[in-house]
Amino acid sequence: MIRMNENYKNLKDSYLFFNISKKVKAYQEENPDKKIYRMGIGDVSLPLGEAVIESLHEAVDDQGKKDTFHGYMPEVGDESLRKEIAKYYLRRDVKLDDDEVFVSSGASDELGDILDLFSRDSKALIMEPAYPAYVDANVMAGREIIHLKTDASSNFLGRPYDGLDADLIYLCSPNNPTGAVYGKKELKEWVDYANKNGSIIIFDAAYEAFIEEDIPHSIFEVEGARTCAIEICSFSKTAGFTGTRLGYTVIPKTLERAGMNINAMWVRNRTTKTNGVSYIIQKGGKAVFSIEGQEQVKRNIGVYKRNAKVLMEVLNKENIYYTGGVNAPYIWMKCPNGLKSWEFFDLLLKEIQVVGTPGEGFGECGEGYFRFSTFASEEDTKEAAKRIAELLERIKG
Amino acid sequence: MIRMNENYKNLKDSYLFFNISKKVKAYQEENPDKKIYRMGIGDVSLPLGEAVIESLHEAVDDQGKKDTFHGYMPEVGDESLRKEIAKYYLRRDVKLDDDEVFVSSGASDELGDILDLFSRDSKALIMEPAYPAYVDANVMAGREIIHLKTDASSNFLGRPYDGLDADLIYLCSPNNPTGAVYGKKELKEWVDYANKNGSIIIFDAAYEAFIEEDIPHSIFEVEGARTCAIEICSFSKTAGFTGTRLGYTVIPKTLERAGMNINAMWVRNRTTKTNGVSYIIQKGGKAVFSIEGQEQVKRNIGVYKRNAKVLMEVLNKENIYYTGGVNAPYIWMKCPNGLKSWEFFDLLLKEIQVVGTPGEGFGECGEGYFRFSTFASEEDTKEAAKRIAELLERIKG
Repeated sequence: MIRMNENYKNLKDSYLFFNISKKVKAYQEENPDKKIYRMGIGDVSLPLGEAVIESLHEAVDDQGKKDTFHGYMPEVGDESLRKEIAKYYLRRDVKLDDDEVFVSSGASDELGDILDLFSRDSKALIMEPAYPAYVDANVMAGREIIHLKTDASSNFLGRPYDGLDADLIYLCSPNNPTGAVYGKKELKEWVDYANKNGSIIIFDAAYEAFIEEDIPHSIFEVEGARTCAIEICSFSKTAGFTGTRLGYTVIPKTLERAGMNINAMWVRNRTTKTNGVSYIIQKGGKAVFSIEGQEQVKRNIGVYKRNAKVLMEVLNKENIYYTGGVNAPYIWMKCPNGLKSWEFFDLLLKEIQVVGTPGEGFGECGEGYFRFSTFASEEDTKEAAKRIAELLERIKG
Repeated sequence: MIRMNENYKNLKDSYLFFNISKKVKAYQEENPDKKIYRMGIGDVSLPLGEAVIESLHEAVDDQGKKDTFHGYMPEVGDESLRKEIAKYYLRRDVKLDDDEVFVSSGASDELGDILDLFSRDSKALIMEPAYPAYVDANVMAGREIIHLKTDASSNFLGRPYDGLDADLIYLCSPNNPTGAVYGKKELKEWVDYANKNGSIIIFDAAYEAFIEEDIPHSIFEVEGARTCAIEICSFSKTAGFTGTRLGYTVIPKTLERAGMNINAMWVRNRTTKTNGVSYIIQKGGKAVFSIEGQEQVKRNIGVYKRNAKVLMEVLNKENIYYTGGVNAPYIWMKCPNGLKSWEFFDLLLKEIQVVGTPGEGFGECGEGYFRFSTFASEEDTKEAAKRIAELLERIKG
């Protein structure tokens, strides 16, 4: 009799987005004439930039003609795309060899897959509130998880502490869900910790393109990171690829643990377990790095940033504590009047038809907080902000 | 200090295709005027069908406009594509619910990922000669591997035997590399074994579209398979998607082991570890199942089948033992004059500039055999066949 991976029994069912959509659906059925303002989910709304679309069409044409048809792609990514990504890092003075860059189908896929490299008896540190998949992927592997709960006293930024014994360290900056960002000094503390203790940092940089202040976009801007960090990044939020799927991972060739070279291990993993990312999508993705491509990326991110400003103005005016918004497409606010996350959710839905995400869904320590995403349309965001302002005024204690 | 997955140390470096390309390169440099006939690699050469190309263009256009833009796709696959795939199975009288079909980025990705569901102390049976990734993916998980060596006495088709104690059973029919196929009766022996012993069959059906005889295309044509099998399939060889990437996996909802439902486990895995397959590629793939799409698939497969016939005629005439060719895009031949695999490789390259794959690269028991793929162009295959015929005549003992 085959034995299954029993760790799956330890997974908690995640009802967060399921419950949100159930509640919204029920409300909409009772109130069919009301328009709902959706600012809950972290999915983009603007179409792909023109340069990417053009390049995707070219790639499709290539696949339709014998002379330009592409079969199997390199498992680690198209050579010219790896080069473009390495060049992109140079803008922040980070020098990478092309073969330190791996093309992936997206950050979420890679965050799951890369855990194969580490022993199942290594301990994973996850800062909470957190993207739920960090926890679940490690539960599936039976790994011990150290839950580092953060709160407003540190602006939701965890720091290494005495007696910490972590092997894998997840850092996400700009953070999902809190939008909080690390400065170089705080990141250096983690890099020093990891180098001293032989840990590995998994740095989730999916939101780097939203940074506007003078802080690191990449962990590799921090001295010492080349011997302790892996960076996982995505075209999803940068260039609107949530449904188009493309990402990349940086593993320095200087990263070694227990006598094993992590870059070489990942090459071996990829050549065994994938046949690479679609030629079409990779060619489309390359256009993100052209001059027009970068302008179009900035134009779209500009829209989301204006949305963030509209919302932040409301919270500033009402003197409500929040993180994010400036360097991130998320705003993480304290619920007014001591409301709990789901209470505030219900209030927003019923009173003003605005949908957000209850903070409690990202871990216990998110209770009493609430996440707005800034990815909705400009018109919807403006109307939602107006309604939020009125509601906050109205319920003021 | 983090511990790594030490199982990677037990991987044997695979030099098969690396060595082939090194030898070919060296030969070409010494003989720059000679044309090489490449029949080694299992990669298609014909472009995608017109219906797929048209659908891919439409999908790209969708992503460029706000009203038709698609963000995150369902992690388990687009609903309408799952439905089309389930319908495709009906042609062989296999009834599947749509939610028994999972869309994937391709069979190779899925063959690696799905192992997460099984305990690492389960034993994997791999029939050899075999696709090297079956072995490597299980070595990475530290699983015990039962190598079932096959030979010409059984036409390279392994059967269950007394005392066999296997948890995971890999079956690939039509087979890579041997092109051998199981009949329903032989598959039933495996299904009965798996049901009796609580094993799970991983059925790799990547080459099903090449079948022309009256044998099962799917393990689910065999009674009892719904309680013991997972089927992994691909658009790669069927519709030429090797570089475009799309596949699917069938997990019956009736498949349970140790009190755990495998379909539900896979839903949980996918929703944690991926964000689904590209909208563009899924919409392109849907066109494979249209009337025109199916005609174009058959047209292209027809070309590869004519290539197979040209090669089989040579081997038949020379009375050389081989498997495959009829229901598969591979021909697995016995090397003439008792030559070893690599000796025959060198002879073909130097004497007639034809490149194939030495059988020894697929496992020890492949020594003395040689694989030709039928995916090259018609012209190249004809010329190669002519040269092979002449060479075989010439070296006849």
